[in-house]
Amino acid sequence: SVNPDLASERQTASFSVEKLTALLDGGAEQTRIRRAVVEAIESDPEFSRENQYFQTQNERYEAAVRKAVHLQKRMHEMGWTENGPEYKYIYRALSGDVAFLLHRVFMRSISVLGSDKQIAKWIPLATQHKLIGSYAQTELGHGTYLQGLETTAVFDTATQEFILNTPKISAMKWWPGDMGRSATHTVVFAQLYIHGKCYGIHPFIVQIRSLQDHSLCPGITAGDIGPKMNFEHIDNGYLLLKNVRIPRENMLSKFCEVRPDGTYVRQGSQKINYFTMTTVRISLISDEVLTPLMKACTIAIRYSVVRRQSKLKPGEQEAKILDYQTQQEKLLPQLAAAYAFHFINDYLQELFNRGYREIQRKNFDMLPELHALSSGFKAVITQHCTAGVEICLRACGGHGYSLLSGLPSLYTKILASCIYEGENTILLLQTARFLIKCFMAASAGQPVPPSVTYLAAVKHGKCPAKSKLDFLNPDIYTEAYQHVAVRLTSSTAAKLQDLIQSGVKKHDAWNQCTVQLVQAAKAHCHYIAVKNFAETVEKLETKAGIQKIMKHLCDLFALHGIFSNTGAFLHDGYTSAAQMDMVTASYLDLLAVIRKDAVPLVDAFDFTDQSLNSALGSYDGQVYQRLYEWAQKSPTNQMSPAYERYLKPLLHNTLSKL
Amino acid sequence: SVNPDLASERQTASFSVEKLTALLDGGAEQTRIRRAVVEAIESDPEFSRENQYFQTQNERYEAAVRKAVHLQKRMHEMGWTENGPEYKYIYRALSGDVAFLLHRVFMRSISVLGSDKQIAKWIPLATQHKLIGSYAQTELGHGTYLQGLETTAVFDTATQEFILNTPKISAMKWWPGDMGRSATHTVVFAQLYIHGKCYGIHPFIVQIRSLQDHSLCPGITAGDIGPKMNFEHIDNGYLLLKNVRIPRENMLSKFCEVRPDGTYVRQGSQKINYFTMTTVRISLISDEVLTPLMKACTIAIRYSVVRRQSKLKPGEQEAKILDYQTQQEKLLPQLAAAYAFHFINDYLQELFNRGYREIQRKNFDMLPELHALSSGFKAVITQHCTAGVEICLRACGGHGYSLLSGLPSLYTKILASCIYEGENTILLLQTARFLIKCFMAASAGQPVPPSVTYLAAVKHGKCPAKSKLDFLNPDIYTEAYQHVAVRLTSSTAAKLQDLIQSGVKKHDAWNQCTVQLVQAAKAHCHYIAVKNFAETVEKLETKAGIQKIMKHLCDLFALHGIFSNTGAFLHDGYTSAAQMDMVTASYLDLLAVIRKDAVPLVDAFDFTDQSLNSALGSYDGQVYQRLYEWAQKSPTNQMSPAYERYLKPLLHNTLSKL
Repeated sequence: SVNPDLASERQTASFSVEKLTALLDGGAEQTRIRRAVVEAIESDPEFSRENQYFQTQNERYEAAVRKAVHLQKRMHEMGWTENGPEYKYIYRALSGDVAFLLHRVFMRSISVLGSDKQIAKWIPLATQHKLIGSYAQTELGHGTYLQGLETTAVFDTATQEFILNTPKISAMKWWPGDMGRSATHTVVFAQLYIHGKCYGIHPFIVQIRSLQDHSLCPGITAGDIGPKMNFEHIDNGYLLLKNVRIPRENMLSKFCEVRPDGTYVRQGSQKINYFTMTTVRISLISDEVLTPLMKACTIAIRYSVVRRQSKLKPGEQEAKILDYQTQQEKLLPQLAAAYAFHFINDYLQELFNRGYREIQRKNFDMLPELHALSSGFKAVITQHCTAGVEICLRACGGHGYSLLSGLPSLYTKILASCIYEGENTILLLQTARFLIKCFMAASAGQPVPPSVTYLAAVKHGKCPAKSKLDFLNPDIYTEAYQHVAVRLTSSTAAKLQDLIQSGVKKHDAWNQCTVQLVQAAKAHCHYIAVKNFAETVEKLETKAGIQKIMKHLCDLFALHGIFSNTGAFLHDGYTSAAQMDMVTASYLDLLAVIRKDAVPLVDAFDFTDQSLNSALGSYDGQVYQRLYEWAQKSPTNQMSPAYERYLKPLLHNTLSKL
Repeated sequence: SVNPDLASERQTASFSVEKLTALLDGGAEQTRIRRAVVEAIESDPEFSRENQYFQTQNERYEAAVRKAVHLQKRMHEMGWTENGPEYKYIYRALSGDVAFLLHRVFMRSISVLGSDKQIAKWIPLATQHKLIGSYAQTELGHGTYLQGLETTAVFDTATQEFILNTPKISAMKWWPGDMGRSATHTVVFAQLYIHGKCYGIHPFIVQIRSLQDHSLCPGITAGDIGPKMNFEHIDNGYLLLKNVRIPRENMLSKFCEVRPDGTYVRQGSQKINYFTMTTVRISLISDEVLTPLMKACTIAIRYSVVRRQSKLKPGEQEAKILDYQTQQEKLLPQLAAAYAFHFINDYLQELFNRGYREIQRKNFDMLPELHALSSGFKAVITQHCTAGVEICLRACGGHGYSLLSGLPSLYTKILASCIYEGENTILLLQTARFLIKCFMAASAGQPVPPSVTYLAAVKHGKCPAKSKLDFLNPDIYTEAYQHVAVRLTSSTAAKLQDLIQSGVKKHDAWNQCTVQLVQAAKAHCHYIAVKNFAETVEKLETKAGIQKIMKHLCDLFALHGIFSNTGAFLHDGYTSAAQMDMVTASYLDLLAVIRKDAVPLVDAFDFTDQSLNSALGSYDGQVYQRLYEWAQKSPTNQMSPAYERYLKPLLHNTLSKL
């Protein structure tokens, strides 16, 4: 039975939850397919997530391997293929708790970087799991700066082999997933040396474990890097290479080849690599970043209408905590952001698909824009969503802090997204570099990519809003965001030029501007996110109340951004103090409006109880019952040796002697 | 041997690290005592924290109990007593990883709330550990709002007993530390009923486990609430009471008594309770909040001068990451905040001591101010320091995400401080209530407590700064902070009055202002922190370079606060856009200045390697060696059954059948 405090929230929905779910899925047919996948996976006890919060790192790893192997079997039985419509829902349905993700990266890197011959040899082996692959790029001492990698691969003309080595401890491969315990093979990135000359970083296929008994191959030292903040189920590993010899054919050679005599030949375009990183950054947004935020919102909002605390009005029942303005102010902007980023993800996907088509026609013109947008949005969305999950966790008070709420795991996992696939600050600086370049070009009257044409139009007007209702006009707030993005880019460009003209060296000048460059990059992404949300709302069908509630969320997303960053808008007087008060008033009004639909808005995300795995967030809102039931199963309720060893002697003897 | 990249940082210190350590400790003699305690504890293998990151929750609990019992023995041997000068350093030296903290709260509550007779009976038993106590206040459904607690204690005149019950699941006690597995007794807070009439919440001593065999007493259901984000070493528990009878003498009766005939007598002042909460909130700041931030700064800053990544200048060696402005902008403000909050902690302690002396003279006048300041600062400092630790973690990239860095544990533990001992938002609203009250009083010409007299002096001037150097003048920035605090308080007071005058009911009006009230409370605390830091610097001795570097940190703390919250200062034109650009320039300049002393500034915190327990942060900076050594000890490097069970069949058979 559904908790009446939660049930009542659903009776007053202003829109059709089912229609909104279909919109998020990209159509009712997609919803149907997704639900079928979820149903198939959740009804299979092998995929159970029960007791997950009680498991050790070793148990989590074993379960992830078991699930990965079982998944192969189930996919075969269900007729699901890697190219089928079901595939993209599997990982989400498993909540990511499965091994061999790096095996897929291993395969992708061979497909992208390998010659036709290499693809023909390795891909079938990998597809049939006759080996388990990994991808060994990062080293103990090297992450972001690939040119700094220290692993070496020296070509030996005599034997037609590469000799791989870890010359010092900082060169040890560190972090590769699936490598600590599972992988038999990996793609190692190493500095290629031929006849004493260094040719830079290249990828090599290296076998690290025996296919017979899984023992480490000669010259290989490898293992697991130990506990992390999350990802207990993944065996992130380390790898030391000592004179490991591999045949010449194992260097992935689509773009570069070493001939038998040691001649180095570079061929084809490497721009595609650039594009690969873009692919990964865009693809992680949905599963790794948006899903956790949507889950956290679901948990925190459902809990906030079930939890009652203190009295809002004297003499009445204790109030639902979502009725407090401060609680609304914590949670509802996160909900709005989840929707905003869902739509920007659609925008990026579409841009990416367009770029991909162009690249296939050997047109690389879109690459810089695509790189700048994917870098910037990867950083902005991961940062925003990580902060959002943390806010949801804290907003649930003590119960949010229990692992049983599901929120700590969501937080500790999403946090990693700020670091992997490009550290966020570095990514934002790449976006900023693009912005500065385009701003200079635009100022000189040269053409620039579509997403930055606005930089050319530096306007010195003022915000025309005259009442708080004017701030519910998307044109008004979108223009304010645009103004800020232009101002931050142009002022930082000016500072950069001033420094250089005053004699500061170019790289020093750049470094002295980086704090402000990061701000400019964020402002650019924020502007595009707001603009895209407003344009998306514009195009929605008006029936079933969908457009109306999405308009409210878009307004909230935009006004929350202004309210939390007023200085950027006030700085040059574009927005006046009086207008800022209107923003505040409209923003606070919106909280009360959206609060009414908060539960239907998270219901539309359509997470099952199994996938939320939260004692606070389940569909029926039976929070306290579930917390109690789950706690009783905890291993901490087994008998502890501490009593016999320490407590008994203490209570009976130890201190009575004092 | 010390990593040369770290060693070089120490050679250029602009001040005496030893003198700064003594300043932080409150004198060289205090430093000596602290180090002796640390030495005694760290040389004792029973207190080792080695392998802590590999332990399960059960192992952590057992270790904490073992340490707590061993500590009793060691204290006796060392001659350390609860009133001795060593006592306050013990917990810090153990990094909090010890059981029976709630036993102390049990004792304190009896001392404060019990009659002389009760104190005489229970305190010796507890001191000698003839029982283990806990403190059961929070319930599954009730935290902040004590009046809402649902546990009942019905007085039975016939038997002269109280009958305790958990009438429904939300009334179950939930969270009390030491109660899940260890405690034999606890202080239960329950609604007192006599002859059918409710007299509100009262404290009762209840035995929950047998002193003979530790089995649960009749009518008691209790256990551990399961895994949490941290505090694995603590057995936070649950407790259900079913017709549990305790003698009349077990109600703590310093302030209220139930006579044998059921007559209820209230005696004495309950204001002291108010004061107890204040005590706890102030006392947790140092050990639970400042220490973690200081440790995180130590780890992240030492790592940032050892880690080299990318090139700052073409052709040169890769740069230390602390040389990047963006890295400085992440870490150095956290360092400045650690110092700022250390000094505000001194201020609060002193205020508290003064208040305590007054209270002993039955003068309760200081209580409201003390309550407002301790609530506000508890919230502001826990929030700021939690964010700071997270920034330090992220600033260490992937390695920060490894448990071996020590940073994840610091983060997951400090996060709880935002929730316990008063949820932060609620505390800030208590401070705000005090501010509004004082503002109204001051406006009406009535006297107000010292910390808020500034509210009376609403000035409408402008910031007089004319160059970026003016913003290194504490008078300039302190006044700017003051101006913002006054503006936010007065404008919210005006909004509140407007709403009420327009017919909105008082409690609704309050709720509609809470987002802004929270801002006002934060601004008030921030102002006092800046003012106190500036005043502290003023009084420091000028020799040994201490005052100079502290002045830099004070400036950085103040300007970072303006830079990250420009809107508050720009809003009414007190600070102009041109002045804000000066703030930015001065702020960025300061980063480069303080960067030079960053390592000596964290060395001064004087953490031992054992207490940091971090592969990244040790004194010698041998980061990579340590990460590798520690990882090899991880249980994830033991043989996993996953190979035989899943990988072997997969590699050999499963998929070749497909």
